[in-house]
Amino acid sequence: MPRLILVRHGQSQWNLENRFTGWWDVDLTEKGEGEARAAGALMKEKGIVPTRAFTSLQTRAIRTLHLALEAAGLAWIPETKDWHLNERHYGGLTGLDKAETAAKHGDEQVLIWRRSFDVPPPPQEKGDTFDLSTDPRYAGIAIPNTESLKDTIARVLPYYEQAIAPALKAGDTVIVAAHGNSLRALVKHLSGISDEDILHLEIPTGQPIVFELDAELNALDRYYLSER
Amino acid sequence: MPRLILVRHGQSQWNLENRFTGWWDVDLTEKGEGEARAAGALMKEKGIVPTRAFTSLQTRAIRTLHLALEAAGLAWIPETKDWHLNERHYGGLTGLDKAETAAKHGDEQVLIWRRSFDVPPPPQEKGDTFDLSTDPRYAGIAIPNTESLKDTIARVLPYYEQAIAPALKAGDTVIVAAHGNSLRALVKHLSGISDEDILHLEIPTGQPIVFELDAELNALDRYYLSER
Repeated sequence: MPRLILVRHGQSQWNLENRFTGWWDVDLTEKGEGEARAAGALMKEKGIVPTRAFTSLQTRAIRTLHLALEAAGLAWIPETKDWHLNERHYGGLTGLDKAETAAKHGDEQVLIWRRSFDVPPPPQEKGDTFDLSTDPRYAGIAIPNTESLKDTIARVLPYYEQAIAPALKAGDTVIVAAHGNSLRALVKHLSGISDEDILHLEIPTGQPIVFELDAELNALDRYYLSER
Repeated sequence: MPRLILVRHGQSQWNLENRFTGWWDVDLTEKGEGEARAAGALMKEKGIVPTRAFTSLQTRAIRTLHLALEAAGLAWIPETKDWHLNERHYGGLTGLDKAETAAKHGDEQVLIWRRSFDVPPPPQEKGDTFDLSTDPRYAGIAIPNTESLKDTIARVLPYYEQAIAPALKAGDTVIVAAHGNSLRALVKHLSGISDEDILHLEIPTGQPIVFELDAELNALDRYYLSER
Protein backbone atom coordinates (compact mmCIF):
# COMPACT_ATOMS: atom_id res chain seq x y z
CA MET A 1 0.00 0.00 0.00
CA PRO A 2 1.16 3.59 -0.56
CA ARG A 3 3.31 5.15 2.11
CA LEU A 4 4.25 8.78 2.71
CA ILE A 5 7.14 9.92 4.90
CA LEU A 6 7.26 13.53 6.08
CA VAL A 7 10.44 15.08 7.47
CA ARG A 8 10.67 18.64 8.76
CA HIS A 9 14.12 20.13 8.20
CA GLY A 10 16.59 20.03 11.07
CA GLN A 11 17.43 23.07 13.17
CA SER A 12 18.33 26.18 11.16
CA GLN A 13 20.32 29.18 12.32
CA TRP A 14 17.15 31.25 12.69
CA ASN A 15 15.27 28.50 14.53
CA LEU A 16 18.09 28.85 17.01
CA GLU A 17 17.78 32.65 17.11
CA ASN A 18 13.98 32.45 17.27
CA ARG A 19 13.46 34.70 14.24
CA PHE A 20 10.63 34.49 11.71
CA THR A 21 12.26 32.77 8.75
CA GLY A 22 9.55 31.95 6.23
CA TRP A 23 10.99 32.10 2.73
CA TRP A 24 14.38 33.52 3.75
CA ASP A 25 17.01 30.95 2.83
CA VAL A 26 18.72 30.13 6.11
CA ASP A 27 21.00 27.10 6.29
CA LEU A 28 21.01 24.25 8.80
CA THR A 29 23.08 24.42 11.96
CA GLU A 30 25.48 21.58 12.73
CA LYS A 31 22.79 20.19 15.03
CA GLY A 32 20.31 20.39 12.14
CA GLU A 33 22.68 18.44 9.88
CA GLY A 34 22.95 15.77 12.56
CA GLU A 35 19.16 15.56 12.85
CA ALA A 36 18.89 15.06 9.09
CA ARG A 37 21.49 12.26 9.07
CA ALA A 38 19.78 10.59 12.03
CA ALA A 39 16.46 10.64 10.15
CA GLY A 40 18.09 8.80 7.24
CA ALA A 41 19.81 6.28 9.48
CA LEU A 42 16.47 5.60 11.19
CA MET A 43 14.71 4.94 7.88
CA LYS A 44 17.44 2.52 6.91
CA GLU A 45 17.35 0.76 10.30
CA LYS A 46 13.57 0.38 10.22
CA GLY A 47 13.54 -0.68 6.58
CA ILE A 48 11.02 2.04 5.70
CA VAL A 49 12.72 3.68 2.78
CA PRO A 50 11.55 6.11 0.11
CA THR A 51 11.73 5.54 -3.63
CA ARG A 52 10.81 9.12 -4.64
CA ALA A 53 11.54 12.48 -3.01
CA PHE A 54 9.97 15.94 -2.97
CA THR A 55 11.30 19.06 -1.30
CA SER A 56 11.00 22.83 -1.38
CA LEU A 57 13.28 25.40 -3.04
CA GLN A 58 14.82 26.23 0.34
CA THR A 59 18.32 25.10 1.23
CA ARG A 60 17.50 23.88 4.73
CA ALA A 61 14.89 21.43 3.43
CA ILE A 62 16.95 20.36 0.39
CA ARG A 63 20.02 19.69 2.54
CA THR A 64 17.90 17.81 5.09
CA LEU A 65 16.68 15.61 2.24
CA HIS A 66 20.16 15.05 0.87
CA LEU A 67 21.79 14.28 4.22
CA ALA A 68 18.97 11.90 5.14
CA LEU A 69 19.10 10.10 1.79
CA GLU A 70 22.89 9.81 1.95
CA ALA A 71 22.68 8.31 5.43
CA ALA A 72 20.15 5.80 4.12
CA GLY A 73 22.26 4.95 1.03
CA LEU A 74 19.57 6.45 -1.18
CA ALA A 75 21.18 9.56 -2.69
CA TRP A 76 20.15 8.18 -6.11
CA ILE A 77 16.35 8.29 -5.81
CA PRO A 78 14.59 10.82 -8.05
CA GLU A 79 13.88 14.16 -6.42
CA THR A 80 11.73 17.13 -7.29
CA LYS A 81 12.14 20.59 -5.77
CA ASP A 82 9.15 22.90 -5.87
CA TRP A 83 8.25 26.25 -4.31
CA HIS A 84 4.78 25.01 -3.38
CA LEU A 85 6.44 23.09 -0.53
CA ASN A 86 8.19 26.20 0.82
CA GLU A 87 7.61 27.38 4.39
CA ARG A 88 4.75 29.78 5.10
CA HIS A 89 5.68 33.30 3.96
CA TYR A 90 5.75 35.50 7.08
CA GLY A 91 5.50 38.78 5.18
CA GLY A 92 6.76 41.82 7.06
CA LEU A 93 7.66 39.69 10.09
CA THR A 94 10.42 37.91 8.15
CA GLY A 95 13.74 38.45 9.87
CA LEU A 96 12.32 39.72 13.16
CA ASP A 97 13.02 37.93 16.41
CA LYS A 98 10.47 37.59 19.20
CA ALA A 99 11.47 40.79 20.97
CA GLU A 100 11.62 42.87 17.78
CA THR A 101 8.18 41.61 16.73
CA ALA A 102 6.62 42.49 20.08
CA ALA A 103 8.29 45.92 20.10
CA LYS A 104 7.11 46.69 16.56
CA HIS A 105 3.59 45.30 16.65
CA GLY A 106 2.63 44.84 20.32
CA ASP A 107 2.03 41.64 22.26
CA GLU A 108 -1.69 41.65 21.58
CA GLN A 109 -1.31 41.76 17.80
CA VAL A 110 1.35 39.06 17.89
CA LEU A 111 -1.04 36.85 19.85
CA ILE A 112 -3.74 37.39 17.19
CA TRP A 113 -1.39 36.29 14.42
CA ARG A 114 -0.20 33.37 16.44
CA ARG A 115 -3.71 32.13 17.18
CA SER A 116 -5.36 32.74 13.86
CA PHE A 117 -5.75 30.38 10.95
CA ASP A 118 -6.55 32.95 8.30
CA VAL A 119 -5.09 36.33 9.35
CA PRO A 120 -1.81 36.94 7.52
CA PRO A 121 0.95 39.16 8.95
CA PRO A 122 1.43 42.55 7.26
CA PRO A 123 2.77 42.19 3.72
CA GLN A 124 6.47 42.41 3.10
CA GLU A 125 7.38 45.67 1.45
CA LYS A 126 9.16 45.83 -1.92
CA GLY A 127 12.83 46.32 -1.26
CA ASP A 128 12.61 44.96 2.31
CA THR A 129 15.94 43.39 3.36
CA PHE A 130 14.30 39.99 3.04
CA ASP A 131 12.36 40.63 -0.18
CA LEU A 132 12.92 37.70 -2.55
CA SER A 133 10.97 38.97 -5.54
CA THR A 134 14.17 39.31 -7.62
CA ASP A 135 15.72 35.99 -6.52
CA PRO A 136 16.28 33.96 -9.73
CA ARG A 137 14.93 30.83 -8.07
CA TYR A 138 11.47 32.43 -8.06
CA ALA A 139 11.64 33.86 -11.56
CA GLY A 140 8.29 33.50 -13.30
CA ILE A 141 6.48 32.65 -10.07
CA ALA A 142 3.88 35.01 -8.59
CA ILE A 143 5.36 34.72 -5.12
CA PRO A 144 3.29 35.79 -2.12
CA ASN A 145 4.32 38.75 0.05
CA THR A 146 2.63 37.30 3.13
CA GLU A 147 0.58 34.22 4.01
CA SER A 148 -1.79 33.00 6.68
CA LEU A 149 -1.60 29.31 7.49
CA LYS A 150 -4.76 28.99 5.39
CA ASP A 151 -2.95 30.56 2.42
CA THR A 152 -0.04 28.15 2.80
CA ILE A 153 -2.37 25.17 2.86
CA ALA A 154 -4.15 26.54 -0.22
CA ARG A 155 -0.97 26.27 -2.30
CA VAL A 156 0.43 23.05 -0.78
CA LEU A 157 -2.64 20.87 -1.31
CA PRO A 158 -3.12 21.40 -5.06
CA TYR A 159 0.58 20.56 -5.49
CA TYR A 160 0.11 17.42 -3.40
CA GLU A 161 -2.80 16.36 -5.60
CA GLN A 162 -1.03 17.17 -8.84
CA ALA A 163 2.51 15.91 -8.17
CA ILE A 164 2.76 13.78 -5.04
CA ALA A 165 -0.51 11.82 -5.04
CA PRO A 166 0.15 10.33 -8.52
CA ALA A 167 3.55 9.04 -7.35
CA LEU A 168 1.91 7.44 -4.30
CA LYS A 169 -0.78 5.86 -6.47
CA ALA A 170 1.93 4.54 -8.79
CA GLY A 171 3.38 2.61 -5.86
CA ASP A 172 6.19 4.88 -4.75
CA THR A 173 7.08 5.35 -1.11
CA VAL A 174 7.36 9.12 -1.11
CA ILE A 175 9.43 11.30 1.20
CA VAL A 176 8.60 14.98 1.55
CA ALA A 177 11.34 17.01 3.23
CA ALA A 178 9.87 20.41 3.97
CA HIS A 179 8.83 22.92 6.63
CA GLY A 180 6.64 23.20 9.74
CA ASN A 181 3.72 24.81 7.94
CA SER A 182 3.89 23.13 4.55
CA LEU A 183 3.93 19.79 6.37
CA ARG A 184 1.04 20.89 8.60
CA ALA A 185 -0.94 21.28 5.37
CA LEU A 186 -0.34 17.64 4.48
CA VAL A 187 -1.04 16.33 7.99
CA LYS A 188 -4.23 18.40 8.20
CA HIS A 189 -5.44 17.02 4.88
CA LEU A 190 -4.55 13.39 5.50
CA SER A 191 -5.60 13.20 9.16
CA GLY A 192 -8.64 15.47 8.82
CA ILE A 193 -7.53 17.94 11.49
CA SER A 194 -9.64 21.06 12.10
CA ASP A 195 -8.54 24.63 11.33
CA GLU A 196 -8.32 25.28 15.07
CA ASP A 197 -6.39 22.17 16.00
CA ILE A 198 -3.82 22.41 13.21
CA LEU A 199 -2.54 25.67 14.76
CA HIS A 200 -1.44 23.73 17.80
CA LEU A 201 0.03 20.73 16.03
CA GLU A 202 3.80 20.95 16.29
CA ILE A 203 5.85 19.03 13.72
CA PRO A 204 9.17 18.10 15.35
CA THR A 205 12.38 18.68 13.37
CA GLY A 206 14.15 15.68 11.82
CA GLN A 207 11.53 13.16 12.99
CA PRO A 208 10.15 11.07 10.12
CA ILE A 209 6.34 10.89 10.29
CA VAL A 210 4.92 7.95 8.37
CA PHE A 211 1.47 7.74 6.82
CA GLU A 212 0.20 4.33 5.77
CA LEU A 213 -2.41 4.94 3.08
CA ASP A 214 -5.03 2.93 1.24
CA ALA A 215 -5.30 2.84 -2.55
CA GLU A 216 -7.40 6.03 -2.50
CA LEU A 217 -4.76 7.66 -0.30
CA ASN A 218 -6.90 7.73 2.83
CA ALA A 219 -4.74 7.55 5.94
CA LEU A 220 -4.93 4.18 7.70
CA ASP A 221 -2.23 5.02 10.23
CA ARG A 222 0.13 7.84 11.17
CA TYR A 223 3.14 7.40 13.42
CA TYR A 224 6.59 8.65 14.28
CA LEU A 225 9.08 6.25 12.77
CA SER A 226 11.18 6.45 15.95
CA GLU A 227 8.28 4.84 17.84
CA ARG A 228 8.12 1.75 15.63
CA MET B 1 24.00 31.24 -26.12
CA PRO B 2 23.78 27.75 -24.58
CA ARG B 3 26.48 26.78 -22.12
CA LEU B 4 27.41 23.38 -20.73
CA ILE B 5 29.51 22.84 -17.61
CA LEU B 6 31.08 19.43 -17.00
CA VAL B 7 32.42 18.40 -13.59
CA ARG B 8 34.08 15.09 -12.87
CA HIS B 9 33.46 13.92 -9.29
CA GLY B 10 36.13 14.65 -6.71
CA GLN B 11 38.50 12.00 -5.41
CA SER B 12 36.81 8.78 -4.25
CA GLN B 13 38.16 6.19 -1.85
CA TRP B 14 38.97 3.85 -4.74
CA ASN B 15 40.62 6.57 -6.83
CA LEU B 16 42.92 6.83 -3.85
CA GLU B 17 43.46 3.07 -3.72
CA ASN B 18 43.85 2.86 -7.50
CA ARG B 19 41.12 0.24 -7.91
CA PHE B 20 38.79 -0.19 -10.90
CA THR B 21 35.55 1.33 -9.64
CA GLY B 22 33.14 1.52 -12.56
CA TRP B 23 29.60 1.12 -11.30
CA TRP B 24 30.53 0.22 -7.71
CA ASP B 25 29.16 2.91 -5.45
CA VAL B 26 32.21 4.31 -3.69
CA ASP B 27 31.90 7.58 -1.76
CA LEU B 28 34.06 10.70 -1.96
CA THR B 29 37.06 11.14 0.29
CA GLU B 30 37.35 14.30 2.38
CA LYS B 31 39.65 15.65 -0.32
CA GLY B 32 37.00 14.84 -2.92
CA GLU B 33 34.37 16.73 -0.93
CA GLY B 34 36.70 19.73 -0.83
CA GLU B 35 37.22 19.55 -4.60
CA ALA B 36 33.46 19.58 -5.13
CA ARG B 37 32.94 22.60 -2.88
CA ALA B 38 35.80 24.43 -4.61
CA ALA B 39 34.17 23.78 -8.01
CA GLY B 40 30.98 25.41 -6.76
CA ALA B 41 32.79 28.37 -5.23
CA LEU B 42 34.64 28.88 -8.53
CA MET B 43 31.40 28.93 -10.54
CA LYS B 44 29.98 31.50 -8.16
CA GLU B 45 33.13 33.63 -8.27
CA LYS B 46 33.28 33.58 -12.08
CA GLY B 47 29.56 34.18 -12.43
CA ILE B 48 29.16 31.13 -14.65
CA VAL B 49 26.34 29.34 -12.93
CA PRO B 50 24.04 26.50 -13.95
CA THR B 51 20.26 26.65 -14.04
CA ARG B 52 19.72 22.89 -14.57
CA ALA B 53 21.67 19.84 -13.38
CA PHE B 54 22.20 16.27 -14.52
CA THR B 55 24.11 13.53 -12.74
CA SER B 56 24.48 9.76 -12.61
CA LEU B 57 22.98 7.29 -10.13
CA GLN B 58 26.31 7.05 -8.32
CA THR B 59 26.83 8.64 -4.92
CA ARG B 60 30.21 10.20 -5.69
CA ALA B 61 28.82 12.15 -8.64
CA ILE B 62 25.56 13.06 -6.89
CA ARG B 63 27.41 14.34 -3.82
CA THR B 64 29.85 16.26 -6.01
CA LEU B 65 26.89 17.96 -7.63
CA HIS B 66 25.22 18.73 -4.31
CA LEU B 67 28.34 20.06 -2.62
CA ALA B 68 29.18 22.21 -5.65
CA LEU B 69 25.64 23.60 -5.90
CA GLU B 70 25.52 24.32 -2.16
CA ALA B 71 28.82 26.21 -2.37
CA ALA B 72 27.40 28.23 -5.26
CA GLY B 73 24.13 28.95 -3.41
CA LEU B 74 22.27 26.90 -6.02
CA ALA B 75 21.02 23.85 -4.15
CA TRP B 76 17.55 24.68 -5.49
CA ILE B 77 18.10 24.19 -9.25
CA PRO B 78 16.28 21.22 -10.82
CA GLU B 79 18.32 18.05 -11.03
CA THR B 80 17.94 14.76 -12.86
CA LYS B 81 19.81 11.57 -11.96
CA ASP B 82 20.16 8.95 -14.66
CA TRP B 83 22.15 5.73 -15.07
CA HIS B 84 23.17 6.69 -18.62
CA LEU B 85 25.66 9.11 -17.04
CA ASN B 86 27.24 6.38 -14.86
CA GLU B 87 30.93 5.60 -15.11
CA ARG B 88 32.11 2.99 -17.64
CA HIS B 89 31.32 -0.52 -16.36
CA TYR B 90 34.64 -2.29 -15.85
CA GLY B 91 33.16 -5.80 -15.84
CA GLY B 92 35.29 -8.42 -14.12
CA LEU B 93 37.97 -5.84 -13.31
CA THR B 94 35.68 -4.03 -10.90
CA GLY B 95 37.20 -3.97 -7.42
CA LEU B 96 40.71 -5.01 -8.52
CA ASP B 97 43.69 -2.76 -7.85
CA LYS B 98 46.59 -2.36 -10.25
CA ALA B 99 48.66 -5.21 -8.79
CA GLU B 100 45.70 -7.61 -8.60
CA THR B 101 44.75 -6.87 -12.19
CA ALA B 102 48.28 -7.51 -13.45
CA ALA B 103 48.58 -10.71 -11.41
CA LYS B 104 45.24 -12.03 -12.67
CA HIS B 105 45.42 -11.03 -16.34
CA GLY B 106 49.07 -10.22 -17.13
CA ASP B 107 50.65 -6.88 -17.97
CA GLU B 108 50.23 -7.39 -21.70
CA GLN B 109 46.48 -7.93 -21.53
CA VAL B 110 46.08 -4.95 -19.20
CA LEU B 111 47.91 -2.80 -21.71
CA ILE B 112 45.55 -3.95 -24.48
CA TRP B 113 42.51 -2.96 -22.43
CA ARG B 114 44.10 0.31 -21.46
CA ARG B 115 44.93 1.22 -25.07
CA SER B 116 41.82 0.05 -26.81
CA PHE B 117 38.69 1.95 -27.66
CA ASP B 118 36.42 -0.99 -28.29
CA VAL B 119 37.74 -4.03 -26.38
CA PRO B 120 35.77 -4.50 -23.17
CA PRO B 121 37.24 -6.20 -20.09
CA PRO B 122 35.92 -9.70 -19.30
CA PRO B 123 32.29 -9.61 -18.20
CA GLN B 124 31.45 -9.51 -14.55
CA GLU B 125 30.09 -12.83 -13.36
CA LYS B 126 26.66 -13.17 -11.75
CA GLY B 127 27.13 -13.19 -8.00
CA ASP B 128 30.51 -11.44 -8.19
CA THR B 129 31.16 -9.40 -5.02
CA PHE B 130 30.57 -6.26 -7.07
CA ASP B 131 27.58 -7.49 -9.09
CA LEU B 132 24.86 -4.81 -9.00
CA SER B 133 22.17 -6.63 -10.94
CA THR B 134 19.93 -6.87 -7.86
CA ASP B 135 20.54 -3.31 -6.65
CA PRO B 136 17.10 -1.63 -6.49
CA ARG B 137 18.49 1.52 -8.11
CA TYR B 138 18.89 -0.44 -11.36
CA ALA B 139 15.56 -2.25 -11.20
CA GLY B 140 14.04 -2.48 -14.66
CA ILE B 141 17.28 -1.46 -16.39
CA ALA B 142 19.19 -3.91 -18.62
CA ILE B 143 22.50 -3.02 -16.99
CA PRO B 144 25.74 -3.96 -18.76
CA ASN B 145 28.14 -6.50 -17.27
CA THR B 146 31.16 -4.88 -18.96
CA GLU B 147 31.82 -1.97 -21.31
CA SER B 148 34.48 -0.71 -23.65
CA LEU B 149 34.84 3.06 -23.86
CA LYS B 150 32.94 2.76 -27.14
CA ASP B 151 30.06 1.06 -25.32
CA THR B 152 29.98 3.80 -22.70
CA ILE B 153 29.84 6.49 -25.35
CA ALA B 154 27.07 4.57 -27.13
CA ARG B 155 24.78 4.94 -24.12
CA VAL B 156 25.82 8.44 -23.02
CA LEU B 157 25.26 10.21 -26.35
CA PRO B 158 21.63 9.18 -26.96
CA TYR B 159 20.88 10.36 -23.44
CA TYR B 160 22.61 13.66 -24.15
CA GLU B 161 20.50 14.12 -27.29
CA GLN B 162 17.26 13.13 -25.61
CA ALA B 163 17.54 14.84 -22.21
CA ILE B 164 20.41 17.35 -22.04
CA ALA B 165 20.39 18.92 -25.52
CA PRO B 166 16.72 20.04 -25.22
CA ALA B 167 17.53 21.83 -21.94
CA LEU B 168 20.47 23.59 -23.59
CA LYS B 169 18.32 24.58 -26.56
CA ALA B 170 15.69 25.91 -24.16
CA GLY B 171 18.29 28.32 -22.81
CA ASP B 172 19.45 26.54 -19.69
CA THR B 173 23.05 26.62 -18.55
CA VAL B 174 23.46 22.93 -17.81
CA ILE B 175 25.85 21.29 -15.36
CA VAL B 176 26.66 17.60 -15.75
CA ALA B 177 28.38 16.10 -12.70
CA ALA B 178 29.60 12.67 -13.72
CA HIS B 179 32.58 10.40 -14.31
CA GLY B 180 35.82 10.27 -16.27
CA ASN B 181 34.45 8.14 -19.09
CA SER B 182 30.88 9.40 -19.30
CA LEU B 183 32.31 12.92 -19.55
CA ARG B 184 34.83 11.78 -22.17
CA ALA B 185 31.82 10.79 -24.25
CA LEU B 186 30.48 14.34 -24.14
CA VAL B 187 33.86 15.98 -24.80
CA LYS B 188 34.51 13.61 -27.72
CA HIS B 189 31.15 14.43 -29.25
CA LEU B 190 31.29 18.20 -28.76
CA SER B 191 34.96 18.70 -29.62
CA GLY B 192 35.09 16.08 -32.39
CA ILE B 193 37.94 14.09 -30.83
CA SER B 194 39.05 10.86 -32.54
CA ASP B 195 38.61 7.36 -31.06
CA GLU B 196 42.36 7.19 -30.59
CA ASP B 197 42.81 10.59 -28.97
CA ILE B 198 39.90 10.30 -26.56
CA LEU B 199 41.71 7.41 -24.82
CA HIS B 200 44.44 9.82 -23.79
CA LEU B 201 42.25 12.72 -22.78
CA GLU B 202 42.27 12.95 -19.00
CA ILE B 203 39.39 14.76 -17.35
CA PRO B 204 40.65 16.23 -14.06
CA THR B 205 38.53 15.80 -10.93
CA GLY B 206 36.56 18.75 -9.60
CA GLN B 207 37.61 21.10 -12.45
CA PRO B 208 34.62 22.65 -14.21
CA ILE B 209 35.02 22.43 -17.99
CA VAL B 210 32.89 24.94 -19.86
CA PHE B 211 31.56 24.59 -23.40
CA GLU B 212 30.21 27.68 -25.10
CA LEU B 213 27.79 26.45 -27.76
CA ASP B 214 25.92 27.94 -30.69
CA ALA B 215 22.18 27.53 -31.19
CA GLU B 216 22.73 24.16 -32.91
CA LEU B 217 24.92 23.11 -29.96
CA ASN B 218 28.16 23.19 -31.91
CA ALA B 219 31.09 23.98 -29.60
CA LEU B 220 32.46 27.50 -30.10
CA ASP B 221 34.87 27.27 -27.19
CA ARG B 222 35.96 24.85 -24.46
CA TYR B 223 37.94 25.89 -21.41
CA TYR B 224 38.71 25.14 -17.78
CA LEU B 225 36.77 27.60 -15.68
CA SER B 226 39.81 28.02 -13.42
CA GLU B 227 41.68 29.53 -16.37
CA ARG B 228 39.18 32.33 -17.01
